[in-house]
Amino acid sequence: MESSLYETLKVTAQRAQRSTMALAQVPSGIKNKALRAMARSLRTAHSEILESNTTDLEFGRQMGLSETLLDRLKLTPQRLEGMALSLEQIAALKDPVGEIVGGWRHPEGLEIVRVRVPLGLIGIIYEARPNVTADAIGLCLKSGNGVLLKGGKEAENSNQAISSVLKAAAYEQGIPEGCIEQLPGERAVVEALIRLNPYLALVIPRGGHSLIDFVVRNATVPVLETGVGNCHIYVAASADLEMARRIVINAKVQRPSVCNAAEKLLVHRDTVVTHLAPLLEDLHAHGIEVRGCPRTVAFDPKVKSAGEEDWGKEYLDKIIAIKVVDSTREAIDWINHYGTRHSEAIVTANYEEARRFTAAIDAAAVYVNASTRFTDGGEFGFGAEIGISTQKLHARGPVGLVELTTTKYVVSGSGQIRP
Amino acid sequence: MESSLYETLKVTAQRAQRSTMALAQVPSGIKNKALRAMARSLRTAHSEILESNTTDLEFGRQMGLSETLLDRLKLTPQRLEGMALSLEQIAALKDPVGEIVGGWRHPEGLEIVRVRVPLGLIGIIYEARPNVTADAIGLCLKSGNGVLLKGGKEAENSNQAISSVLKAAAYEQGIPEGCIEQLPGERAVVEALIRLNPYLALVIPRGGHSLIDFVVRNATVPVLETGVGNCHIYVAASADLEMARRIVINAKVQRPSVCNAAEKLLVHRDTVVTHLAPLLEDLHAHGIEVRGCPRTVAFDPKVKSAGEEDWGKEYLDKIIAIKVVDSTREAIDWINHYGTRHSEAIVTANYEEARRFTAAIDAAAVYVNASTRFTDGGEFGFGAEIGISTQKLHARGPVGLVELTTTKYVVSGSGQIRP
Repeated sequence: MESSLYETLKVTAQRAQRSTMALAQVPSGIKNKALRAMARSLRTAHSEILESNTTDLEFGRQMGLSETLLDRLKLTPQRLEGMALSLEQIAALKDPVGEIVGGWRHPEGLEIVRVRVPLGLIGIIYEARPNVTADAIGLCLKSGNGVLLKGGKEAENSNQAISSVLKAAAYEQGIPEGCIEQLPGERAVVEALIRLNPYLALVIPRGGHSLIDFVVRNATVPVLETGVGNCHIYVAASADLEMARRIVINAKVQRPSVCNAAEKLLVHRDTVVTHLAPLLEDLHAHGIEVRGCPRTVAFDPKVKSAGEEDWGKEYLDKIIAIKVVDSTREAIDWINHYGTRHSEAIVTANYEEARRFTAAIDAAAVYVNASTRFTDGGEFGFGAEIGISTQKLHARGPVGLVELTTTKYVVSGSGQIRP
Repeated sequence: MESSLYETLKVTAQRAQRSTMALAQVPSGIKNKALRAMARSLRTAHSEILESNTTDLEFGRQMGLSETLLDRLKLTPQRLEGMALSLEQIAALKDPVGEIVGGWRHPEGLEIVRVRVPLGLIGIIYEARPNVTADAIGLCLKSGNGVLLKGGKEAENSNQAISSVLKAAAYEQGIPEGCIEQLPGERAVVEALIRLNPYLALVIPRGGHSLIDFVVRNATVPVLETGVGNCHIYVAASADLEMARRIVINAKVQRPSVCNAAEKLLVHRDTVVTHLAPLLEDLHAHGIEVRGCPRTVAFDPKVKSAGEEDWGKEYLDKIIAIKVVDSTREAIDWINHYGTRHSEAIVTANYEEARRFTAAIDAAAVYVNASTRFTDGGEFGFGAEIGISTQKLHARGPVGLVELTTTKYVVSGSGQIRP
């Protein structure tokens, strides 16, 4: 059973990889025309897409999905318009393919030029939100990559409807047929997909910790890890109080469900009375559940005691855990131990401390006196992103079009041989 | 048994990772002093290292190792001097750590700077040659990375002797203790090493196809694939004959045992009489065993018939297989199908054909009118390399110091929050 699924997917992947080779040669003009046509088709086909979405929603209700999950699954005319606009924005971005990244002349006169090229065929595994279907197709197409999409079972009809519309529009504009494939939403597809060497250049799991962990542990194709963010704000002894309050509230409250939201607050012991007290007031006032280390709990009886499991956890919710530290050294070691290498911030007025923190913290983005919420493809000016990489290999931080490419060396000679 | 080995290695890796965090902060001055001290120590300790090597060689002879393998294993005063010089050369290279790769200002006034930083703890799995021990330690140290080395069982004593000498010299100069570890040469160590998440940033297998394949299939830590090169030379219809002869002989004959040597020759059907005939003469004259497609065999009875398994094979020997193709399109498709994405060359006088070949071939390095033998860290001006990456993620082509690093974003603000 699994083996026959693997064989079926292998055939799909082989075909998709062949089309992807052709896609790599398609110039930006055609890709941009296709992206704009895809946006138009999404608008034209909006009633049939919404109908498929209604089927998913009804089925989801029968299956007892939570209201949060149903809301993520739900498409509206506004959300569809957002997807169409996003495709148009991707069309307007600079094509990374063909960029000359560098080059030099070899002593024997060879010219060595490093050129940006697509990665190849990319597998994307994602969960509830059907808008990921359009975003992922758009970003992969623009960067010259083929894509095998595996969405959630609960969004099966919505995803199939969206990708059918987008594929038809793309192929009509000259995008090579077969380079976009929506795979069935079954869980078993994941296990097969992540072993499709050598057809898949890369697999990107977008979702919760358990999905990502499963993919990392079981994939034989290369993986781009995205998204888990157990982000810390460290309020140092010299921190400006108003700045600390503004940053902590923004990072925790503005959108608690995203990976760049703050999950932990570290405060220097000298700031317990001056800073921690008003910070606790703010957090309570915003309805945030506060957990804490023994010193925090001793200071404020409303704070629940945090367990060891809290310190490594990404809540993605209106919860924060607070730890009082004795020194910046302790804060740095704590973050490097419990952090997920996503985004970490210090609030300080001390120059040397700021330098020490940014040098020593091991994370994709390290902030001084700013909210962790800025780690985002849009905020970084990449225009769009497929996720935030928390790994060190290949891409670190927001993964935009450039991060979906690789390079090759083109070496031009006149008969040179190696002596 | 395996589980207790895993637990032991985990403790080693945890300790090494902690030292590696400290190593990341060590400035170039100290690293360079350490590298030069390590070179001196290799020279001072040369008799004890040669003694350990003699033990390995005697044991190897008893075990019936081939003369080729024994030669790879053998250290001589000259080879030790080569290792010492190589460490001094690494000391003279530019330190990639701390390089500002780019940066910009966010509309809200945040400064976003992308800084080059070490990867972390790297696992290196290699086979017979003990000089890899010194090279790998040198390259990792210079790029600020810790290293767990797993050499071949047959070189156990030599590797342990070399790394003991190098570790002592490095730690004496202020390199954090524990960031260099020589693991036992047992095969079982590989299985444990490649699953040391999250302590290992990366594992690099250096060796034959079966080692690399095993690591790719079983690793849960990220892998940098290196080295398998089934490289092609395509002689197009318009190729200059003398140039084609020079390049084919250089790429095949100069050093057949390396990954950038040519393994296959494709010739356009229109060149069979004009080019293939003299090329065959040259190859026979150089004692190369020639295998071929039916048309090549029909043309020259000295050519053995090549089987399907030949076309994907890396011989690393004085063997070549020749295929007559009907068009450049066929040559491109053939190479993209059977190649290992290492180095591929065309010999042509036709401008449009050269462009088409370099655009369509999917490989780390694509050559026009030059030998594939140039794909090399030294030739590319990287100074030293740890291998040639044939994968697309992270690094493609020669892996030098820069490819052993990643980047992080340092974001400096004055209290910015996300609106």
